[in-house]
Amino acid sequence: MKLTVDGLDLAEAVATVARAANAKAINPVLEGIKLTATKDTLTLSATDLEIFLQKTIRADIKQQGTVIVPGRLFAEYVRKLDKSSLSITSDGQTVVIKHADNICNFQCLPADEYPSIINLTEEPYFSIKSEALRDLISKTTICTSQDDSRPVLKGVLFELYKDTLTGVALDGFRMAKVEKSIANYKDAGKIIVPARSLDEVRKLLSDDNGEVNVVVENKFLQISVGNTIMATRLIDGEFINYAQIMPKEFTSDAVVEKSHFENAVERAGLLVRSDRVNLVTIKVGDKQVAVSSTNEIGRINEKVAASLTGKDVTIAFNAKYLFDALRNIQNDFIKLQLTGEHSPAIITAAKDGDFTFLVLPVRIS
Amino acid sequence: MKLTVDGLDLAEAVATVARAANAKAINPVLEGIKLTATKDTLTLSATDLEIFLQKTIRADIKQQGTVIVPGRLFAEYVRKLDKSSLSITSDGQTVVIKHADNICNFQCLPADEYPSIINLTEEPYFSIKSEALRDLISKTTICTSQDDSRPVLKGVLFELYKDTLTGVALDGFRMAKVEKSIANYKDAGKIIVPARSLDEVRKLLSDDNGEVNVVVENKFLQISVGNTIMATRLIDGEFINYAQIMPKEFTSDAVVEKSHFENAVERAGLLVRSDRVNLVTIKVGDKQVAVSSTNEIGRINEKVAASLTGKDVTIAFNAKYLFDALRNIQNDFIKLQLTGEHSPAIITAAKDGDFTFLVLPVRIS
Repeated sequence: MKLTVDGLDLAEAVATVARAANAKAINPVLEGIKLTATKDTLTLSATDLEIFLQKTIRADIKQQGTVIVPGRLFAEYVRKLDKSSLSITSDGQTVVIKHADNICNFQCLPADEYPSIINLTEEPYFSIKSEALRDLISKTTICTSQDDSRPVLKGVLFELYKDTLTGVALDGFRMAKVEKSIANYKDAGKIIVPARSLDEVRKLLSDDNGEVNVVVENKFLQISVGNTIMATRLIDGEFINYAQIMPKEFTSDAVVEKSHFENAVERAGLLVRSDRVNLVTIKVGDKQVAVSSTNEIGRINEKVAASLTGKDVTIAFNAKYLFDALRNIQNDFIKLQLTGEHSPAIITAAKDGDFTFLVLPVRIS
Repeated sequence: MKLTVDGLDLAEAVATVARAANAKAINPVLEGIKLTATKDTLTLSATDLEIFLQKTIRADIKQQGTVIVPGRLFAEYVRKLDKSSLSITSDGQTVVIKHADNICNFQCLPADEYPSIINLTEEPYFSIKSEALRDLISKTTICTSQDDSRPVLKGVLFELYKDTLTGVALDGFRMAKVEKSIANYKDAGKIIVPARSLDEVRKLLSDDNGEVNVVVENKFLQISVGNTIMATRLIDGEFINYAQIMPKEFTSDAVVEKSHFENAVERAGLLVRSDRVNLVTIKVGDKQVAVSSTNEIGRINEKVAASLTGKDVTIAFNAKYLFDALRNIQNDFIKLQLTGEHSPAIITAAKDGDFTFLVLPVRIS
């Protein structure tokens, strides 16, 4: 392998793919980044066998070839170089990087040991606006579980039906459901995408990417943005029947200014932040939503003006879950829907929202 | 105690003093912040018995009084309030904070349990330009030791002689010496100031504080900036005779562009970052300073053009120590002075520097 490449292009490409390299992998090959020089491009690939990232940049190829370089070290070294032209050569044993008067040799691994990466067709399962997909990801992934014992809950359910993609995540304490319009839709279907992989997708998407094609094949999902390809293994298994959990009717509705309610929950949560359950009490009635917390150190009482319909009710929540939901809502006013102190609360935008947060209450004696 | 105070003033004052409160103190009083309402001011104080911080702000006092509030909680709550007027009242058992329609009660402690704080005269030992003191602090504290077994090395020696303050810190591997002009100087003397306290002093100082008066009395040092007073206990003991360590003559001089040398050391250091000693080799000769590192993963060779006098020499250092020194130098060119591979290296500005960094070499077999 022998090539010259722009330092800035290389640094950006390495930064993008290096996130998929696993510095703690048992197999040293997975700590590496694969460089493939063909025709007039250099392709960088990395994977931890769940996420696959690949980026292709222009390069002046003098001799084609493939090699695996130490991932973290290569990424850091390239990042620290001045961003002018540099040359890369390799005999398969070592890779040599030359830059101005400086020279660097890294031991490398033969490329045939590298797991074969992405090989899906380009036929999209559906297309979605880049911004919509980002919004769906950021609102749902906050509710995924970290618990290895129920793998499906570490992912987000993508449910496709007619022109709508519904994203759902839940962890036994709260649930997020987001609906987005899609195009070029083929069939109804359900897949579960790892939250970790979706975080990587979100990083690849900017507001101006327009439509994104989503390819789903052989238990993999693949997205291409510019010259970057991200593929992820899907999670096997049956997702929870979320529709069953979602209450259909409510006995109390409160509409509040979102920033006031969010501040009130945040301040009341401070007092109980180190408690096992971050218990805050919500009292709906008397034209307001009162948020309070109490323990042996003190008591915090916050009042938020509200427009109410239905019954007065007092209900308790984990402040963290309420706050997580609220800070992910960009609307000025939100609606809180309740059915007594033992039923889940629903938080939505007061109007025109495409998302629904559900939070289970904490029983208070 | 009964008062109203501006929320923004209070939030700033709390943020300043709370750093001295010790959330892990065995004595719960030291976790607290003392509020003292007198005449038309509210004074906030906190200490961990080493550092004492005190800030006074204007307040509308309806009833004078003193109380100790839970430090961390009070600081966080006040920070999260909208920054309008708020009222504070206390009966000595609880403190009540009212803000718009919101109300908060914290249990508090009687103020007579609080250690008496700062009570030094206002007679300065010397005065120094704010910017000069900040520079001295940031260049010396990087070389202080973290080792409890030699308490004097956890501080910076302040040596006063004629119109000069010399700050010195060392940890057995490197040393920093910085000289600054002072005014209103009384007598020659030596004190050792804890690095932790100096970091607090640095945070208090901005570039436009003009001259700062430094009071030294009864094994305490005190600095006032605006309405904030910082006092610190000094470290007892005899500092190392640093002049003995400092080489007086050299056999090799190299002048290099600082940014080039710094980048070279940083890149070469990447390879050996996880090694026990971050060993980089410096080879002075042939109109250049070559920086290299090597281990089983690879080899990095960097070349920096230099203007040399004296003998060629090859010497090895811990990259971290070299890099720490270099990133604390703002000058465009630096001078590296060496006397063979076993003697300390001296790094200074190529001209007009008021600081000297010394780094011990690592013996290579």
